[in-house]
Amino acid sequence: MARQVYSNMSEQEKENDPLYKRRHSLAHVLAEAVQRLYPGTRLGFGPAVDNGFYYDFQFAEEFDSENLPKIEAEMRKIIGEKQAFTRTVLDIEEAAKRFEEAGEILKAEHVRELAEDHKEVSIYQNGEFTDLCAGPHVENTSQIPSDCFALDSVAGAYWHADQSREMLTRIYGLAFNNKKDLKEYLRQREEARKYDHRKLSKELEFYTMTEKVGLGLPLWLPNGTVLREELEKFAKETEQRGGYQRVATPHITNEQLFYTSGHLPYYKDGMYPPMQIDDGQNYYLKPMNCPMHHMIFSSRPRSYRELPLRLAEYGNCYRYEGSGSLAGLLRVRGMCMNDAHIYCSPEQLAEEFKAVLDLHSFYYDKFRIEGYWMRLSLHDPKNTKKYVDNPEAWAQSEDAIRQVVRSMGVDFEEVPGEAAFYGPKVDFQIRNVLGREETASTNQLDFAVPSRFNLVYTGKDGEYHTPYCIHRAPLGTHERFLAFLMEHFKGAFPTWMSPVQVMVVPVSVEKFGDYAERLAAALRNDLYRAQANLEGDSFNKKIRAAVTSKIPNILVVGANEAENESVTWRRYSVKDQRTLKFTEFQNILAKMCKERTMDNFADVVLPE
Amino acid sequence: MARQVYSNMSEQEKENDPLYKRRHSLAHVLAEAVQRLYPGTRLGFGPAVDNGFYYDFQFAEEFDSENLPKIEAEMRKIIGEKQAFTRTVLDIEEAAKRFEEAGEILKAEHVRELAEDHKEVSIYQNGEFTDLCAGPHVENTSQIPSDCFALDSVAGAYWHADQSREMLTRIYGLAFNNKKDLKEYLRQREEARKYDHRKLSKELEFYTMTEKVGLGLPLWLPNGTVLREELEKFAKETEQRGGYQRVATPHITNEQLFYTSGHLPYYKDGMYPPMQIDDGQNYYLKPMNCPMHHMIFSSRPRSYRELPLRLAEYGNCYRYEGSGSLAGLLRVRGMCMNDAHIYCSPEQLAEEFKAVLDLHSFYYDKFRIEGYWMRLSLHDPKNTKKYVDNPEAWAQSEDAIRQVVRSMGVDFEEVPGEAAFYGPKVDFQIRNVLGREETASTNQLDFAVPSRFNLVYTGKDGEYHTPYCIHRAPLGTHERFLAFLMEHFKGAFPTWMSPVQVMVVPVSVEKFGDYAERLAAALRNDLYRAQANLEGDSFNKKIRAAVTSKIPNILVVGANEAENESVTWRRYSVKDQRTLKFTEFQNILAKMCKERTMDNFADVVLPE
Repeated sequence: MARQVYSNMSEQEKENDPLYKRRHSLAHVLAEAVQRLYPGTRLGFGPAVDNGFYYDFQFAEEFDSENLPKIEAEMRKIIGEKQAFTRTVLDIEEAAKRFEEAGEILKAEHVRELAEDHKEVSIYQNGEFTDLCAGPHVENTSQIPSDCFALDSVAGAYWHADQSREMLTRIYGLAFNNKKDLKEYLRQREEARKYDHRKLSKELEFYTMTEKVGLGLPLWLPNGTVLREELEKFAKETEQRGGYQRVATPHITNEQLFYTSGHLPYYKDGMYPPMQIDDGQNYYLKPMNCPMHHMIFSSRPRSYRELPLRLAEYGNCYRYEGSGSLAGLLRVRGMCMNDAHIYCSPEQLAEEFKAVLDLHSFYYDKFRIEGYWMRLSLHDPKNTKKYVDNPEAWAQSEDAIRQVVRSMGVDFEEVPGEAAFYGPKVDFQIRNVLGREETASTNQLDFAVPSRFNLVYTGKDGEYHTPYCIHRAPLGTHERFLAFLMEHFKGAFPTWMSPVQVMVVPVSVEKFGDYAERLAAALRNDLYRAQANLEGDSFNKKIRAAVTSKIPNILVVGANEAENESVTWRRYSVKDQRTLKFTEFQNILAKMCKERTMDNFADVVLPE
Repeated sequence: MARQVYSNMSEQEKENDPLYKRRHSLAHVLAEAVQRLYPGTRLGFGPAVDNGFYYDFQFAEEFDSENLPKIEAEMRKIIGEKQAFTRTVLDIEEAAKRFEEAGEILKAEHVRELAEDHKEVSIYQNGEFTDLCAGPHVENTSQIPSDCFALDSVAGAYWHADQSREMLTRIYGLAFNNKKDLKEYLRQREEARKYDHRKLSKELEFYTMTEKVGLGLPLWLPNGTVLREELEKFAKETEQRGGYQRVATPHITNEQLFYTSGHLPYYKDGMYPPMQIDDGQNYYLKPMNCPMHHMIFSSRPRSYRELPLRLAEYGNCYRYEGSGSLAGLLRVRGMCMNDAHIYCSPEQLAEEFKAVLDLHSFYYDKFRIEGYWMRLSLHDPKNTKKYVDNPEAWAQSEDAIRQVVRSMGVDFEEVPGEAAFYGPKVDFQIRNVLGREETASTNQLDFAVPSRFNLVYTGKDGEYHTPYCIHRAPLGTHERFLAFLMEHFKGAFPTWMSPVQVMVVPVSVEKFGDYAERLAAALRNDLYRAQANLEGDSFNKKIRAAVTSKIPNILVVGANEAENESVTWRRYSVKDQRTLKFTEFQNILAKMCKERTMDNFADVVLPE
């Protein structure tokens, strides 16, 4: 499985990756084309990236993005010239001089920076074009199919990403194995833009943000609040079945708590500043719920009989994120977390950890999230500085968790040296709609923090013991998870989650409006979110409106339906419709909601 | 109905209240007794209060509360002396001198304070005792039954409630119409102490507080969180039926929002201090949800077709209360409010306000809260400074609301001049367990704030109009309302709310433990909170434990039950028990939870 992003790739991996070499070579071809067409243009950096390549240029005159086709044509010409790539190793000083002489002062500057760690550098030449470059490249431009790439867009970028330096012009290109892959990528991207959660949220009124309240602080509109509440209900039921107990804790706390937990001073930059009250007491918004749950654990003596103790809370946390990094619901400052902490004895660890991982699989399968895998982060026994000095706990817990991970039947990788200082963890990795890897949730074992809080239980032996603590949040935060679901579902939620579950549309309001309203009222009385559209618009316009709003069930009623107490049921996710008794529809609806059927997928079998 | 507290009483009302006069006279008798027994004791203030009287003394030597019976006996002696109360009016200066000569320097100081507004003062004399006093009093101590009162307790109190002045000794006495009323009060008080929500919360593990998190910031334990969530579910269903839509808003906001709302600077003292981020932007914890809901209203253009728009949220707010005023859950710094704002046209006001008041009656009847009444606060047309200058809105809205209040069939009183500056309001008043009056919730009409936020809707006429806004929170905050319910229910919640709904107790764990666990598991599978007690304790101890925990349903299972798939059902609230098929019990349980039966009251009829 190719799970590397290029920035993490070793030289050997690059050498073995033909697409990497092609993309990297295309960056050079782009620069060559630009310098042919715009002599005097200076070069910045030009790497391969996950979907192609880019190059940063310092144009002598203002550059117009309308010129991209011209450059692309020149690139194809260069490819046709079958230029060979040749590598030369030069002494640093010689290389610097060579770039200076060619007027490439940025390149020369970079060469001198490399002098700190290097005595020599490599340069690559193809045709009349020369670039400072570690490689690797294709052997010859003829190895690049001329229809596998396309220039994409233009953006500004500072030299060395430093706002005080020159603003350069970055030209992005896309490149794939072949034309088909390129087209598929463009289709996916088009789709991703169409179903971006910010766009969908505007159209379907899920949330709003305003500077008057603050950046990164979403206000959930009625439709979005339904999504939150239905998801929360689902999680709560699932957790109740899993033996969790719920708690509710404040959003602020005296700083003492965070000094005990160690959030202060280490995590201070990620927190909002303190509020000072009561003659000099500092209070902070909580960035995490754990310390609160620890206080509940320690609110009275605990016995081994109470373990595992699983404390769950949909807890609102606040984190100070730089305003530049905020992005829709994906990066916010206020978030509501599907949080829980499991306190258990070392003997219970394997079973509890397995239950947590199983819970992930249960949710992912439920929401039809496919192709996820796990990353097991382990400690590095040689790095005694980074890791809690408790070899027994490390050995015991890593062993237990590795066994659990192996037993899951889910793809996984081990990453030594990436564990947190207080215990191993298992991340669930998913790919977003563009195929990019994301960590969906983290399951952290913690055998250090319980001692900071003096958490103990009385064992069978009558002695005090320190419990292990598992931090888990399989559904992450409402903000991130719902943003993901909006895009994953393309805005069309299953009936049980939908803001409006049923829209009744009479063929004629005058004749069947009463019947339509009676059905809608009967459904509302059973606490379904149902409406009858009795406005003055045409029938077709009403159907279109319901479809645009992605309402999962439309009930069309006319003479036949009114006479037979029946409805004609159109689903959003499938083409055909079906006439059935209203009571029959009610039964199916009840089952769909109770079983949380994913009827937004056309292939899902509805309950009878 | 006597709804006055003495501090609000007019002279005429005092004159017409025999109990007031008796309590007031007893304060004088107390002072007389103290000065007889402890010559040289100086007098502070000595008023009548809602359950009796007190007097503040400056004793020459330290006072021991063990002396109360001696003082009480002296009081009875004085009453037996049939002393007459006589009133004399003196020139201020003369009165001051007289108190000075008697060594009563505090009284003399107070007389001189009165000189600002008065030329004369009255003094009352009974026997050898004289006091500065506005009266009224009984004519003769013989009018005080000697068994209608009792000295109660001793506390410290600063002269003039000023911490920089003398600390005096306050002696409290209880006094009622007769011995029976006194005994009833003492019984009620004993009851109230036994069922104080703080005491119950410790015993039944509802919440905990710790200075490490902060004063007035409860951490809800699993049992208390069940109460919150069940109450919240009930409110949400009820509001869904009432046509409310739910929203979810952040707990912090940029200060801009509160400047628009007017909370800043006027309400600043009741708020937490600001957090400054993003180069000088101040953020505040929200003390109220209204401005957030207004932002949702104004997040897009609104049409008259959308009105009434009812936005509901169980919103967490934070208010800075002085640490001295914090008291259990009754006065906290963080609270979760059963909040909603209804935006409507003037024509819709009466109907919407009526629905809100009806909702209160619905909840109160449901929870068996009896003897509540309403206070309708109106504006004072003459006070143009205090009230928004909009005579038409005042006339229209006060008229509409008065009509609604009248139609309710619930006791009410009108209080002119007590409306907020932006509209009339209706308070719901209840009595706590000691009979003291409390405002349970406020329904506020607001026709000024929508203009501050530029809230408008397009009317049928195509023009912009400003909506009315109704603020309502019938279930108040979780903190206050649940504290009230804990005391009201004496800790015994109905099945639908109970932390543990069913406890299965086998007569013998060895023989019937499996059967017991099977039943509990079946109930848990249907998401009931059910347990089987399989510990090693004796049967009787298990029953006692379940009763102590006030678990509403105990299922006893033995040979007969195991053989017949039946259970013997004992309820917490009634004495008798009943053997029935387990499936039959499941049906009744399902109905009790669905209908939210108040089975914690013995007289409530259970569903069949």
